[in-house]
Amino acid sequence: MATVPLLDYDDMAPEARAVIDDIKAARGVDDVNNFWKALAHQPDNLRRIWEGLQEVMAPGALDTVTKEMLYLAVSVANNCEYCAHSHTASARAKGMTDEQYGELLAIVAMASQTNALANALRVPVDDGFLR
Amino acid sequence: MATVPLLDYDDMAPEARAVIDDIKAARGVDDVNNFWKALAHQPDNLRRIWEGLQEVMAPGALDTVTKEMLYLAVSVANNCEYCAHSHTASARAKGMTDEQYGELLAIVAMASQTNALANALRVPVDDGFLR
Amino acid sequence: MATVPLLDYDDMAPEARAVIDDIKAARGVDDVNNFWKALAHQPDNLRRIWEGLQEVMAPGALDTVTKEMLYLAVSVANNCEYCAHSHTASARAKGMTDEQYGELLAIVAMASQTNALANALRVPVDDGFLR
Amino acid sequence: MATVPLLDYDDMAPEARAVIDDIKAARGVDDVNNFWKALAHQPDNLRRIWEGLQEVMAPGALDTVTKEMLYLAVSVANNCEYCAHSHTASARAKGMTDEQYGELLAIVAMASQTNALANALRVPVDDGFLR
Amino acid sequence: MATVPLLDYDDMAPEARAVIDDIKAARGVDDVNNFWKALAHQPDNLRRIWEGLQEVMAPGALDTVTKEMLYLAVSVANNCEYCAHSHTASARAKGMTDEQYGELLAIVAMASQTNALANALRVPVDDGFLR
Amino acid sequence: MATVPLLDYDDMAPEARAVIDDIKAARGVDDVNNFWKALAHQPDNLRRIWEGLQEVMAPGALDTVTKEMLYLAVSVANNCEYCAHSHTASARAKGMTDEQYGELLAIVAMASQTNALANALRVPVDDGFLR
Repeated sequence: MATVPLLDYDDMAPEARAVIDDIKAARGVDDVNNFWKALAHQPDNLRRIWEGLQEVMAPGALDTVTKEMLYLAVSVANNCEYCAHSHTASARAKGMTDEQYGELLAIVAMASQTNALANALRVPVDDGFLR
Repeated sequence: MATVPLLDYDDMAPEARAVIDDIKAARGVDDVNNFWKALAHQPDNLRRIWEGLQEVMAPGALDTVTKEMLYLAVSVANNCEYCAHSHTASARAKGMTDEQYGELLAIVAMASQTNALANALRVPVDDGFLR
Repeated sequence: MATVPLLDYDDMAPEARAVIDDIKAARGVDDVNNFWKALAHQPDNLRRIWEGLQEVMAPGALDTVTKEMLYLAVSVANNCEYCAHSHTASARAKGMTDEQYGELLAIVAMASQTNALANALRVPVDDGFLR
Repeated sequence: MATVPLLDYDDMAPEARAVIDDIKAARGVDDVNNFWKALAHQPDNLRRIWEGLQEVMAPGALDTVTKEMLYLAVSVANNCEYCAHSHTASARAKGMTDEQYGELLAIVAMASQTNALANALRVPVDDGFLR
Repeated sequence: MATVPLLDYDDMAPEARAVIDDIKAARGVDDVNNFWKALAHQPDNLRRIWEGLQEVMAPGALDTVTKEMLYLAVSVANNCEYCAHSHTASARAKGMTDEQYGELLAIVAMASQTNALANALRVPVDDGFLR
Repeated sequence: MATVPLLDYDDMAPEARAVIDDIKAARGVDDVNNFWKALAHQPDNLRRIWEGLQEVMAPGALDTVTKEMLYLAVSVANNCEYCAHSHTASARAKGMTDEQYGELLAIVAMASQTNALANALRVPVDDGFLR
């Protein structure tokens, strides 16, 4: 249960419906995920998030599956349950293999461990890291 | 200032010195970073972290620079100051370009935004994400 | 399922029951929320939290609904599922409109984004911010 | 020291300079804060963040100072050092009094305490909170 | 529902099965918890985590129940739902009393409160803390 | 530099001075740490935090040094720089040895690693953990 009702397409404001139409077309799907149905209460947020995602996740100096894996790693570190599920699914859909997922998990775990140690010990940053 | 003195090589226990020697050899450097000098007070932790890092960061289904970028993204999401500096430096040393770094930052920012929204709205996970 | 049984009023220690009575009277309700029933195992914690909440959330330089929205924003940033639900409900009960909630969500999202960027880039604090 | 050099205006790409000009004009200042000089390496990110901020922080159902205080509360909960300083300064510039700041701090502290307890006890969400 | 299927013993790779056998023997149980069944997809991660846990949690300068309580306190601060449940259970199994658990919770709550205040106010570290 | 000036004793309100006097007497010190000087702007917060700390940290079912180590572990997991320094110092003052500190650090690191994995994999809680 979300903190707001998930909106049906027919109950959305026209500005929200236009964004949902755009998501469906861009992804070639008949329906959008729950995230968008919750966000559709605020057409401005909805549009801004969708436009931002398209810009950020378009292939560039990094390819699409690398971008999806980075998105997933951050979502996991930020402990977002919905995002862990949705971005594991989308990284797989973009080509992440089981082996790559396993290595990603090992990196998330290892980094969380050394992050905790460096934060606990308050290790001063080496001069060499500051150019 | 760390919460422990950064240990000089000569002041380390032999078990710690053996790990430091291994790090120097593996990386082809004359001296190790502050992180290792702080960790050297506990030779067991030092060895376990170093062995874990070598296993996890060896090229596999993911190449080295992708692994470094994932490590950096997690370190940033976990808000580790030391790690943000050290892993930005090591990702660059492994080949991350300025453009790739810019795209990584944009993904970290975008993910943090949608993570916060999904957590705020407590969006229920779509059945389609649960196989 | 909590990590402790939710206590029924009749099973509480007298010191806990006195606090629960006080909560019911202050809020004009017949029963308290699950949070209090879990906390009632430790009458001292229960009393300290309840007294603290009353002091902190009483109207002062900030009005009640602003205080509730700040509480909600922090709870969401801290990723507390129970608190996201309970404080969205209590902010609404105190007068937060749908529009205000939408703007609050947009701020939480935007702040999480720029927080992540500043932390990733380790931007040095401007002298002007340090009076 | 940031992980990137803070860019001088003259070293920015024209697309970045256009955004910086816009920030200066909107804020009536001669120079922008370090955050923008670090972000200016990626004109696209720079533009997207600036446009998002303007949309989100414009007065609406919430007034400007309330929005700034919410931004500050989230930044503090997310433990962003730069943002704690910059948004304390900007909330004050928008009218937050010392008393209001004190009450905001008390709420951040109290919420962090009850968030931790609810997360520790994994209290199940009351049916009444789920409409 | 995990992001991977929980593996049955018969479906595990031999390297994973060997670790699971070791866990069962060390703990004197017939079956392992879900965590290990999810981790068993990556025998290397599985082995590394299990070996690390055994080293770290063996009695040393700290006794077993103190170690379990520290593990629990960190898991709660890191907001891990699975870990809050599993480590509350294992701390109890190792001897943590209801009273000790109550005091642990009060400390987690109190620390989260003062942590938030120190982070909000960005209090400079006293010289006396830096030896 | 804190976000507020650190208050000198002579500049504090009488209610704040009374709390500071109490801290000095309880700890047998001539001066208090920066945390209290920053908090002294809000006498109510100051008093509530000090009273809460005294209640929570008094010896009970857990002895003083165990309580200090739990406080430290949480402060580190919450990534509070000030608190990592101040609570490492106070745990040592209460009797934490170098060996115990080393084991505490190993637990913080290990827990952060398994917390991240359980959160990433969204492992469902075993029925056995839910009594």
